[in-house]
Amino acid sequence: MTARFVTYSTASGHGYGLLKDDGLVDLSSRHPEWPTLREVIEAGALAKLAEEGADLAPDLAPGSFRFEIPIPQPEKLICVGVNFPDRNEEYKDGQAAPSNPSLFIRFPRSFTGHDQPLIRPPESPQLDYEGEIVIVIGKGGRRIAEADALDHIAALSLCNEGTIRDWVRHAKFNVTQGKNFDRTGSIGPWLVPYTDESQIADIELTTRVNGEVRQQDRTSRMIFSFRKIINYISTFTTLVPGDVIVTGTPTGAGARFDPPIWLKPGDVVEVEADGIGLLRNTIADEG
Amino acid sequence: MTARFVTYSTASGHGYGLLKDDGLVDLSSRHPEWPTLREVIEAGALAKLAEEGADLAPDLAPGSFRFEIPIPQPEKLICVGVNFPDRNEEYKDGQAAPSNPSLFIRFPRSFTGHDQPLIRPPESPQLDYEGEIVIVIGKGGRRIAEADALDHIAALSLCNEGTIRDWVRHAKFNVTQGKNFDRTGSIGPWLVPYTDESQIADIELTTRVNGEVRQQDRTSRMIFSFRKIINYISTFTTLVPGDVIVTGTPTGAGARFDPPIWLKPGDVVEVEADGIGLLRNTIADEG
Repeated sequence: MTARFVTYSTASGHGYGLLKDDGLVDLSSRHPEWPTLREVIEAGALAKLAEEGADLAPDLAPGSFRFEIPIPQPEKLICVGVNFPDRNEEYKDGQAAPSNPSLFIRFPRSFTGHDQPLIRPPESPQLDYEGEIVIVIGKGGRRIAEADALDHIAALSLCNEGTIRDWVRHAKFNVTQGKNFDRTGSIGPWLVPYTDESQIADIELTTRVNGEVRQQDRTSRMIFSFRKIINYISTFTTLVPGDVIVTGTPTGAGARFDPPIWLKPGDVVEVEADGIGLLRNTIADEG
Repeated sequence: MTARFVTYSTASGHGYGLLKDDGLVDLSSRHPEWPTLREVIEAGALAKLAEEGADLAPDLAPGSFRFEIPIPQPEKLICVGVNFPDRNEEYKDGQAAPSNPSLFIRFPRSFTGHDQPLIRPPESPQLDYEGEIVIVIGKGGRRIAEADALDHIAALSLCNEGTIRDWVRHAKFNVTQGKNFDRTGSIGPWLVPYTDESQIADIELTTRVNGEVRQQDRTSRMIFSFRKIINYISTFTTLVPGDVIVTGTPTGAGARFDPPIWLKPGDVVEVEADGIGLLRNTIADEG
């Protein structure tokens, strides 16, 4: 069984631990030297903690904690814009396939954890889903060669890169606004340590809404590979441990339908990928 | 004399203090409860510290410390894209003036401090300047009304929002890449506490390259006012103390010339605004 590292909260605070079928082994209280999973990753200690936690009994019963996003305060949280076949055509702007990845930035507060509701704001009914695979950087670097790029991944996770679609084009350029409404997306449910290229080379990524498959594709079909993404981003910015990269969504978001189908309160969205997990969120109006 | 709060570094570490003509009063060592100016602002303690520092002799002589960006790790660092007359025309895309501000996000590591060189990367010769006024949020909030918006400003600063121009359009959309090369921009030299609308309502903002005026305009001509910017951004994201907003540049960047004039090693760029200060940087090739 692959280790599953969870960042959680309870009434008494935040922490992180190892998820087992019968509950959560709290590791944060045993390792005050590492306040969050970001520092665990910086210390290169995921494997060590997986081993340590394997022999411990759960401290928290299932249902007694909330899932939070795995890296609460990464230095950087970068998203890739158009990275699966047919997605470029969805833009209907007549442009050829891009030669470099489109990138944008989200703030951590635009995400919530597994099993929490995505929040539909009063400003727009156009809340849309985008299922994506997340890589978390372990070893930092600048101008990382594609050949070495996978050695810089520490862990994997999933993202529902929820978007307020009309606010993506609210101004002259940039998608900043529509991508950064508080708690419109989710990351989780946990981090799975990255050990081997087979974990990401050709896995299936599926998004379901109320049980109906809306997006489904395989990572082997990504326009820009994980290697290329790490290489490209590190050309301009120094990647550091704990940096989160959201690697792009397959075709089939709600905006693609005619008429578009937006998420509404009561809907359940699931993002699932082989070997990583299943990220589930409901939808709620901002209260 | 308005108080000038500086974040600095020396061989022995980082800190913050009050700049006087004969040196720097270190405040960080006297207030370990506030690790950076972000926490000072969160505590609403700028005025208190200005008063406390006024009576103290400098701890650091001029030249014995480096200027760093005032808020080393803000939760958010948001830039406004097109916010002065004629700037929209510079885009030459035939689009009418925008009805909402364009926004993008920069990582703190894309900036350096006052008196440090901006770094021209080997990937492009197109390093360009953009002089801008910076507001730092004091009181957080969501959906802040324009009428109340200025009450949420804690401090003012300046930015050279240095840009790698060809990488701004390197991919299908978004300016992320060209705006985020490490240390291509600067923020500083210091924070000036915000107390009164007259500090920003109609001040002159000037950018000079090697002494020649390249950009000059007044804040009263901004397309989107400081009030509107705070109101608009807080519509989608909750602003928190220490958030940094870079409010847009006047016409006259190097890209505007025919042929364009890019910054080169040895150039000196100065961004100056009435009552805030003068931010000066040289240019150096990445070493």
